[in-house]
Amino acid sequence: MEQKKQNPTAEDETQTISRRIQRISLHITPIPRPLHDHDSNLGLLPCATREKLVVETEKLSVYMRGKYRDIQEKIYEYFNARPELQTPVEISKDEHRELCWRQMNGLIREAGIRPLKYVVEEPAKYFAIAEAVGAVDISLGIKLGVQYSLWGGSVMNLGTKKHKDKYSEKIDSLEYPGCFAMTELHHGNLFHLYYFANEMRFLAEKCVASIFMELSESSNVQGIQTVATFDPITDDFTINTPNDGAIKWWIGNAAVHGKFASVFAKLMLPTHDAKGVSDMGVHAFIVPLRDFKTHQVLPGIEIHDCGHKVGLNGVDNGALRFTSVRIPRDNLLNRFGDVSRDGKYTSSLPTINKRFAATLGELVGGRVGLAYSSVGVLKIASTIAIRYSLLRQQFGPPKQPEISILDYQSQQHKLMPMLASTYAFHFATVNLVKIYSQMKMTHDEQLVGEVHALSAGIKAYVTSYTAKSLSVCREACGGHGYAAVNRFGSLRNDHDIFQTFEGDNTVAADLLKQYKEKFQGGTLSVTWNYLRESMTTYLSQPNPVTSRWEGVEHLRDPKFQLDAFRYRTSRLLQSAAVRLRKHSKTLGGFGAWNRCLNHLLTLAESHIESVILEKFIEAVEKCPDASSRAALKLVCDLYALHRIWNDIGTYRNVDYVAPNKAKAIHKLKDHLSFQVRNIAKELVDSFDLPDHVTRAPIAMQSEAYAQYTQHVGF
Amino acid sequence: MEQKKQNPTAEDETQTISRRIQRISLHITPIPRPLHDHDSNLGLLPCATREKLVVETEKLSVYMRGKYRDIQEKIYEYFNARPELQTPVEISKDEHRELCWRQMNGLIREAGIRPLKYVVEEPAKYFAIAEAVGAVDISLGIKLGVQYSLWGGSVMNLGTKKHKDKYSEKIDSLEYPGCFAMTELHHGNLFHLYYFANEMRFLAEKCVASIFMELSESSNVQGIQTVATFDPITDDFTINTPNDGAIKWWIGNAAVHGKFASVFAKLMLPTHDAKGVSDMGVHAFIVPLRDFKTHQVLPGIEIHDCGHKVGLNGVDNGALRFTSVRIPRDNLLNRFGDVSRDGKYTSSLPTINKRFAATLGELVGGRVGLAYSSVGVLKIASTIAIRYSLLRQQFGPPKQPEISILDYQSQQHKLMPMLASTYAFHFATVNLVKIYSQMKMTHDEQLVGEVHALSAGIKAYVTSYTAKSLSVCREACGGHGYAAVNRFGSLRNDHDIFQTFEGDNTVAADLLKQYKEKFQGGTLSVTWNYLRESMTTYLSQPNPVTSRWEGVEHLRDPKFQLDAFRYRTSRLLQSAAVRLRKHSKTLGGFGAWNRCLNHLLTLAESHIESVILEKFIEAVEKCPDASSRAALKLVCDLYALHRIWNDIGTYRNVDYVAPNKAKAIHKLKDHLSFQVRNIAKELVDSFDLPDHVTRAPIAMQSEAYAQYTQHVGF
Repeated sequence: MEQKKQNPTAEDETQTISRRIQRISLHITPIPRPLHDHDSNLGLLPCATREKLVVETEKLSVYMRGKYRDIQEKIYEYFNARPELQTPVEISKDEHRELCWRQMNGLIREAGIRPLKYVVEEPAKYFAIAEAVGAVDISLGIKLGVQYSLWGGSVMNLGTKKHKDKYSEKIDSLEYPGCFAMTELHHGNLFHLYYFANEMRFLAEKCVASIFMELSESSNVQGIQTVATFDPITDDFTINTPNDGAIKWWIGNAAVHGKFASVFAKLMLPTHDAKGVSDMGVHAFIVPLRDFKTHQVLPGIEIHDCGHKVGLNGVDNGALRFTSVRIPRDNLLNRFGDVSRDGKYTSSLPTINKRFAATLGELVGGRVGLAYSSVGVLKIASTIAIRYSLLRQQFGPPKQPEISILDYQSQQHKLMPMLASTYAFHFATVNLVKIYSQMKMTHDEQLVGEVHALSAGIKAYVTSYTAKSLSVCREACGGHGYAAVNRFGSLRNDHDIFQTFEGDNTVAADLLKQYKEKFQGGTLSVTWNYLRESMTTYLSQPNPVTSRWEGVEHLRDPKFQLDAFRYRTSRLLQSAAVRLRKHSKTLGGFGAWNRCLNHLLTLAESHIESVILEKFIEAVEKCPDASSRAALKLVCDLYALHRIWNDIGTYRNVDYVAPNKAKAIHKLKDHLSFQVRNIAKELVDSFDLPDHVTRAPIAMQSEAYAQYTQHVGF
Repeated sequence: MEQKKQNPTAEDETQTISRRIQRISLHITPIPRPLHDHDSNLGLLPCATREKLVVETEKLSVYMRGKYRDIQEKIYEYFNARPELQTPVEISKDEHRELCWRQMNGLIREAGIRPLKYVVEEPAKYFAIAEAVGAVDISLGIKLGVQYSLWGGSVMNLGTKKHKDKYSEKIDSLEYPGCFAMTELHHGNLFHLYYFANEMRFLAEKCVASIFMELSESSNVQGIQTVATFDPITDDFTINTPNDGAIKWWIGNAAVHGKFASVFAKLMLPTHDAKGVSDMGVHAFIVPLRDFKTHQVLPGIEIHDCGHKVGLNGVDNGALRFTSVRIPRDNLLNRFGDVSRDGKYTSSLPTINKRFAATLGELVGGRVGLAYSSVGVLKIASTIAIRYSLLRQQFGPPKQPEISILDYQSQQHKLMPMLASTYAFHFATVNLVKIYSQMKMTHDEQLVGEVHALSAGIKAYVTSYTAKSLSVCREACGGHGYAAVNRFGSLRNDHDIFQTFEGDNTVAADLLKQYKEKFQGGTLSVTWNYLRESMTTYLSQPNPVTSRWEGVEHLRDPKFQLDAFRYRTSRLLQSAAVRLRKHSKTLGGFGAWNRCLNHLLTLAESHIESVILEKFIEAVEKCPDASSRAALKLVCDLYALHRIWNDIGTYRNVDYVAPNKAKAIHKLKDHLSFQVRNIAKELVDSFDLPDHVTRAPIAMQSEAYAQYTQHVGF
């Protein structure tokens, strides 16, 4: 489906959009339902309309679940049946690591989940497993990711047949627990699952650079300093950590359980010239860390425990120093570059940077998985906060029963746009997984670029939003949200490291590349298609007539919403390109990039929001059940108008939106929040998270208070 | 000083402001200093100007420190000399509670700090102690607050001479550890230090109600359900928990150490009518919890451990249920209401609500202390993040040395407005403590109202900002920010509960009361003085000439900045009053209040920002050292323009700011961020936090990396 849409003409797309809008407008007919009596004097009804949708949770839930629900339920049921494998509220780091290891062994050996083949062959299923496992304990989700996506993934994706034959079965069965040793103390300091982050900065710089300056191929932006020097006499590599800054840091599975690591190091080949060695760039090598039988750390390897972390203490991160560690030549993961017996280097890729990019490209799945799992965390948190807010009664009009705290406008303001965003991100990440899976099957070059930039952008955007929302949820539940048993603390601490902003830069850089290609007559990839229209349509003066339209029908029209999102992106892109060009003359490429960095990050965010809205609108349109569709349409409108309102300054500043239209947007946004509140229960129920998965006593679907007081011992 | 300014005429104030501006503009002459060479091509210089201030840290630091620095240093030195009292990175809940208790005993019995008299007589000194103790471990700060400000404060402020004679010495020496038992499971669910939050909502409702509806005195908004029934035969009270929802919850010091509690309960007096008892409203009672010798829980009292919390696990929060617990009549804290031997009630205050308000009013110090300590936490976090960002080098222009990550525009964007806000909040909370101290001395009624609303607003605003900033700091330090030893995790988890939004409502309600008084010819209290001008000046159409001024001199003029802040508040206040009046006709008072709740919260925030800016401008003006003053002026301008930019949509929407002026504000804000970055080291050094207080290895002022690798074991 995504494939078919490549390179349509602008006309094609306009037609497609208007067909969609017609279809949507036919479908959306909210079904009125009377509210309970005393609502009318609670200020709960911002408009005269009092319709409340009837949502059939089961139907909406089926639409949301996806095809891998079975394996997720199998995982939930397995852990539900084994209370001894449940992570307690208080647990020491060392106990947590051992429990996490037992959980993983149970999952693989008892529940019979075998994730490795899905990493390569059916990524959507692998991500579904990772999401479910993360709901059990995020540490377990990350430990699983280290073993299968990082260690396993590096062997499967960067190695060749000999490696797969030797390692894959034993990795899958946990006989060969392993690590992914890329990050170093001074470079790539971000948490190791975040190995992309710095590389993204590098790629961003490089992409911007490709427009505005010349970057020498030999620039040391790859940063990694660990070296692997080939010795043609003994036919092996010697791995060395040249200085303390090159100590591998934050390496998951290293402190306790790992037997192997895929170590990223500069491949050095002996030469006959004065230098003596030649740097072939960063490659990955399989390095045994511990003795199979004794589990003793092998000679030349020094491992220290990185110690207590803010969260994820079930994962044993370690620091590794190598001193003349010899490994056979066969241990080079040689898919993108190989060394022959006599020390000759061969590669299908011409330059160091292209090889490094190909290497990283194969590991992009980690980013996709993080985005996907982050939405899983957001679903759990928003479910807990909303179920509690529905339960909790507080105050109310004089001499009347107290009302649910979700009936307070301020509580709706905190939680309803968050619920809408959760739905938006759900569809956006499902789509991301879909195109990632297509990419893994087709290796289509355009899709590779697409997945690369989109995964960076969506991961950065979604994880940042989830991190903030976890704090909002805690606050929204007041003191009881502060009880560890109600989970916001551990969810926030564990999820915290999922986020980083660096990934955004790539998106901005990619947009700029697209912008350049547009002006050079090149083609635009799928995601950026709308820019084709943008550059010609959106950049003309805002339409003084439509900027004044303020009717509800217009504001809820997906065309208006998408236009607004895309208009903003187009403006930001154009102005960024102009500013970069201007500043590069005086500041050089890097200086210009840095000077416009905030601008580029805003641009990236704006683009990602455009993509998310587009996917949400598509998902509304495709929903087969009328009442579910109406509910989704409501949620989608809230998402769109809430985002537009958040950036109303920009829209007003260019008169894209007239003053009264801005007010109308604000009013409608509040009204939609109220309407979504009326179906909030059904919307969280449709995430289909049973009580034994959400686990927080305050969010139990019956007797929540009793379960909470029981927990404390009453 | 604050006293003298009461009720000036509008003319007076205008004159004062223009005098101030003249003085400020005379003082501010930034001293240029050349930058290092390669800055010019890093995009680091957003304007042609390249001046860098020379800041004499020692002088600025002296201005910031305040007069209680000595006692803070005594505390820092005491704990620095006793490593066995330092909280380790990993510690179980139970061990943490015992350690926290040992820390407090050391502080009181070894270091000889005696806080109780300061709680009543010299609050500024008490808050300085609490801030320093919080820097050692936030749990210790809260445990201290429970013992001295809450338990001790309730006895000293709500009791009479007989209570002080009997308890004060033993509370001060820790012989009588005690609790403050207000919060109940169903009502007042917010963490118990947050006992104000719900009551503030009640007061807010009541204040709004006083304008728009009639609230019966008997409405049950006080919420507390625990009862204390007087028995004239035995001359004692019987304390009872009538249902599970009335269990006292989150009571600090209760689970392990407390011997007493001041219990808030409805005072019931026997009557001779059909009802049998009469509810005299909520009063506080001293209830012994545990046996002096055996530490056994006394009969009729059930105590359970509230368990593991998101943070503050050094504080032993418990849940208390009372079953026919008898206490002597003397244990009623009888300052605002008393019961005679024959069961007659007497009070100097006429109604239940007035007595309850007086009771809470005496406890307002907790809120002041939280705001003050929250700024202390923000100083520590921003110092760690900024020192690390200065140290950490990453990338840079091709073939040039790497640059500090604080040279990246995106990092400046994250951290420099935060540093400016830290300075702003420092002066705002110092001022709050000052007027609180005046209030405690004078009992001036207007000051009481002032402190009440201002402390609610500033606490809500500051704690919310600090909570968000702790996450930003963690992210800004990447993976190393995720190492527990670098403190962001525990700071965030411990501080988290400091925040709540409810307090804001009071401010909004108070503003509305002031608004009403303005129109009824009443007087305005100190803080709201500017509204006098606002209502006449600001609400006219924005000046089409000044809305186009975009010169740097104009944008850095405190008059422009304050006008902009106050204009926004005035508009929000006027529109809120209009909307409330309109909606109250159809929705009733409560409904109208709820319908406008987000509006009221925005109004409250806007007002608080106006007050913070005003105090910051005053502090700049008063600074005696020219270079420090110039530095503070820079920081103050960044604070002001950053806030204005954050709300640019509002300003644009009413054409208070023309499009090009908006752009100029944005540009200047980035430039000021860059200039503040150039003195960021000096600005954090002026907080005067030695390495043994900040403690994070990544923020050490020498050999940070070596200390970090040593910590891990290399």
